[in-house]
Amino acid sequence: MRFSTFFAPTLKETPKDVVLKSHEYLLRAGYIQQLGSGIYSFLPLGKRVLTRISQIVREEMNRIHAQEVMLGFVTPSELWEKSNRLHKYGKELLRFKDRKNAEFVLGPTHEEAAVEMIKGYIKSHKQLPIHIYQIHLKFRDEMRPRSGLMRGREFIMKDAYSFHKNKADLVREFQVMEQCYQRIFNRLGLDFRIVKADSGSIGGTGSKEFMVVAESGEDTLAICQECTYAANLEAATRTAKQPQTRPPQATFAKFNTPNTTSIKSLCAFFHVEPYWTMKAVVKKILKQGKSELAYFFIRGNDTLENIKAQNVTGADEIIDASKEEIEAVGLHIGYIGPIALRNITQSQQIYFDEELRDGGNLICGANEEGYHFVGVNLAEFEGLVYADLISIQEGDICPECKRGTLIHKKGIEVGHIFQLGTRYSEPLNASFLDENAQSCFFEMGCYGIGISRLLSASVEQNHDQKGIIWTSSISPFSLTLILSNSKDSLQQQEAEKIYNSLQEMGIEVLFDDRNERFGSKMADFELMGIPFALIIGKGTPNGLCEIIQRKTQERCEIQLSEACAYVQKLIHHCSVNLSTD
Amino acid sequence: MRFSTFFAPTLKETPKDVVLKSHEYLLRAGYIQQLGSGIYSFLPLGKRVLTRISQIVREEMNRIHAQEVMLGFVTPSELWEKSNRLHKYGKELLRFKDRKNAEFVLGPTHEEAAVEMIKGYIKSHKQLPIHIYQIHLKFRDEMRPRSGLMRGREFIMKDAYSFHKNKADLVREFQVMEQCYQRIFNRLGLDFRIVKADSGSIGGTGSKEFMVVAESGEDTLAICQECTYAANLEAATRTAKQPQTRPPQATFAKFNTPNTTSIKSLCAFFHVEPYWTMKAVVKKILKQGKSELAYFFIRGNDTLENIKAQNVTGADEIIDASKEEIEAVGLHIGYIGPIALRNITQSQQIYFDEELRDGGNLICGANEEGYHFVGVNLAEFEGLVYADLISIQEGDICPECKRGTLIHKKGIEVGHIFQLGTRYSEPLNASFLDENAQSCFFEMGCYGIGISRLLSASVEQNHDQKGIIWTSSISPFSLTLILSNSKDSLQQQEAEKIYNSLQEMGIEVLFDDRNERFGSKMADFELMGIPFALIIGKGTPNGLCEIIQRKTQERCEIQLSEACAYVQKLIHHCSVNLSTD
Repeated sequence: MRFSTFFAPTLKETPKDVVLKSHEYLLRAGYIQQLGSGIYSFLPLGKRVLTRISQIVREEMNRIHAQEVMLGFVTPSELWEKSNRLHKYGKELLRFKDRKNAEFVLGPTHEEAAVEMIKGYIKSHKQLPIHIYQIHLKFRDEMRPRSGLMRGREFIMKDAYSFHKNKADLVREFQVMEQCYQRIFNRLGLDFRIVKADSGSIGGTGSKEFMVVAESGEDTLAICQECTYAANLEAATRTAKQPQTRPPQATFAKFNTPNTTSIKSLCAFFHVEPYWTMKAVVKKILKQGKSELAYFFIRGNDTLENIKAQNVTGADEIIDASKEEIEAVGLHIGYIGPIALRNITQSQQIYFDEELRDGGNLICGANEEGYHFVGVNLAEFEGLVYADLISIQEGDICPECKRGTLIHKKGIEVGHIFQLGTRYSEPLNASFLDENAQSCFFEMGCYGIGISRLLSASVEQNHDQKGIIWTSSISPFSLTLILSNSKDSLQQQEAEKIYNSLQEMGIEVLFDDRNERFGSKMADFELMGIPFALIIGKGTPNGLCEIIQRKTQERCEIQLSEACAYVQKLIHHCSVNLSTD
Repeated sequence: MRFSTFFAPTLKETPKDVVLKSHEYLLRAGYIQQLGSGIYSFLPLGKRVLTRISQIVREEMNRIHAQEVMLGFVTPSELWEKSNRLHKYGKELLRFKDRKNAEFVLGPTHEEAAVEMIKGYIKSHKQLPIHIYQIHLKFRDEMRPRSGLMRGREFIMKDAYSFHKNKADLVREFQVMEQCYQRIFNRLGLDFRIVKADSGSIGGTGSKEFMVVAESGEDTLAICQECTYAANLEAATRTAKQPQTRPPQATFAKFNTPNTTSIKSLCAFFHVEPYWTMKAVVKKILKQGKSELAYFFIRGNDTLENIKAQNVTGADEIIDASKEEIEAVGLHIGYIGPIALRNITQSQQIYFDEELRDGGNLICGANEEGYHFVGVNLAEFEGLVYADLISIQEGDICPECKRGTLIHKKGIEVGHIFQLGTRYSEPLNASFLDENAQSCFFEMGCYGIGISRLLSASVEQNHDQKGIIWTSSISPFSLTLILSNSKDSLQQQEAEKIYNSLQEMGIEVLFDDRNERFGSKMADFELMGIPFALIIGKGTPNGLCEIIQRKTQERCEIQLSEACAYVQKLIHHCSVNLSTD
């Protein structure tokens, strides 16, 4: 491709209201253009990257015998009504009426359409398993579209749906998909982690997310420094924390403890470490339009993880309770404890962290201003509800290897695999006959990859102050051939010769033959992020040219006569390193 | 691909409400599934054909240096407001509001978004021409979606937009595209015609349509039997008709002509051929919400072409005028003529066919019941408006070679190329600086191919009573390998061996290894339309197998040991024949 006729406009200025580097560089280097809020058009460079990513995903999906289909993008609302998602999905589901007043949605995900495709045709267990996928448009009416392709409204996804005769076969396919996704992200050349995750509005159990590690990521991951354990913060666990000191020996008693409304002042008062105290966190939960207070007890050295708290209550939303709301039910901030709490508040929403299970020698509020209990032993209480409630901190011990310490990293979600079970097949009445001629609902899995988001995620992970650095498997071109001075006829002649040779060798090369200053060509090369540049410049009369590696900025002078062979070896080397075959 | 695990369900019964064979076969053979009115999902077979068609289109578009992009599908209404199409496009344009009450459309075509992509970046004539294209989703809210993919609401199109510094360069690209489209439809293996066409709601001048010839086509074409001339009926012309007899010599006079309200009775009365009479056709036209009568004069041997009549009046709609409406303005059916017509009706909508220009010796109504004029000479009248108004009949003489006779054929529109000029660049204010630093609007072309419709069009042209017959370039597989009896271990062993060899040779083969009767495997082969079947059956012990060509039903026995080489030759032969390289 000759740059002089290639539509790849670059911008010198940073566009307004741009925070992320990926957003800035993809706009400035001419990969994408904003058409509306959260809606982007892809210029030729952007489309080339999309195509390369899609092709890798397609090859790996085909390898595990998934079959490519294309589901209707516009979907009748009726189907979403049946699956009980029409209202539940909220305002991100864009709904509209056609000229005949029939209601449709712009598909943000396609479980319903996938079930429809299968249910009419597959009647017997002998036809299972089936795994279909598509690489296609999605629309999600985000409240606050931002960061370019990272959180757009219109986007490209690979979504896949598998259908199984039983749970065991679904679990087998889920593991196949985990490996498939590993191959995909390895081939894309990205540093990623597989994390245990929360299933969110899709439903089902046992979901895992694929996270591209990047400082700007919106998600926080807990990662073990010794083993492969990694989890989203809302799903992370740890080996139970051990106390630093021996337990404070005391029989059950009430103490007057003035001015000890914080864990710190309480610990100072009793000369104990926070481990031996029990903290109450009060939240307001919203559930089916109603709100009420909920009470969470954790050790004094821990922090409540909101998503875990929300999940255990089944609430739609969870927010902090105000001082007034807490006092209105007869409680005193700083002195809240579990004893008699149900009597005082009439609440059914009282939870204890797993690490408090049957814990003894505890200090907690007495539900009386200025008083705490000591010597509390939870094993003596009946009917307490325990759940994992705590936020994992850096330095906590890995729950799997039980040796390594956990650290936090930021990540960008680029893939998510789910075991859906019968979440969709049941309401959509999609069944088959099993070995005993019994009608059963399909066990389903679903598996997504954010194809367009991967452009942003890749740039977030791989860039510098000058621009993008593509990994070689998704770069729009393998090489930029830069003609340093387009008015120098010897340089031009050599550059044309090499361009033709490289094309004949099947190498995707962008030939910068523009009548521009060398500096501006180099700036565009650095902004665009193609892995290598071959420069035909001042060395030409001496039979020399120069290779630059974008990532390391390393330069190396080589013989003109050996340039093509050298480039071929470089590119071959990169692709061999990245292939997992 | 093994059929036993391939998701390609076939149906025995014809689905209800299906008229076209392409609709029936694509549903029954498991290519497509209806998801909603005019909305289809593509099963693996259908997706494979889509991919093959898209790939041929992509290769040919790239060859002429068009650059692939992807434009936002959901488009802000604001852009359509600016181009003045938001209301003009009518109800086929699906409009909706997002959660913030901003209005959008589902793009039925993307001129606006394409202009937006170019206008921000291209400032100088030196950067022109530019040609961008995409293969992507479209939505058109058809009043009456029907015939499967033929007239759906959601569909896949290749749409391309070119930008030029002047008209001459646009005309050059238009010709390049005509050739490009010829290569595409040749490679697809379709019998097609290029026809002069009406530009419709897209606007612009000089448009051509690409029509796949098929009996079920909705469009009628006039085609020359001698040269390459072809035109849509609404754009077709002819060499002016010549009279069979000498003109009736008469001086201008009024005759009492009772009971001559038809051309036939009038000709009998005066003993002349219809050529020498002038027929009045009265229509009601609707324009910007108002209706009025319009008068069209053509020779008695001709028929009015409605679209031509509508175009000349600039009406939004044209319908027949009733007897009552005609009489209400003081006219008498069968006796309407041009003389004094404007005085009687006050109408500005009076038109004469081009073949009547300055015509003499004519007989026409006298606008008085029971009277006609003879010896009328139109050259004596001033200010008459002439236009091409007539419908081209079979037997008319070609306007280009002036020798061949025209015949009618039915066609399916699969491509349309337009010279848009500044129809969009002007209202969207998209300009560049020319050689003299003057600001000019881009001259634009646009070029569409109905990718998903091509599946239907191809099947309409190529099928028989048993099912589809794909051309080899778009068939989902090159070959079906049929294991006749899956319980015969020798047959199975040989079939597996051949399947592996064919795969190693890179041949796309569907291996029918199902545990089904041979007859049902053959029926599926015939329904699905893959060009060849290789049957491993009873001849196996004697080292023989059989090749069947789907189209001709020809069968040929060959040695098992030579089967793979034979198949390779067959497939290579087909692809060589179809390639235009």
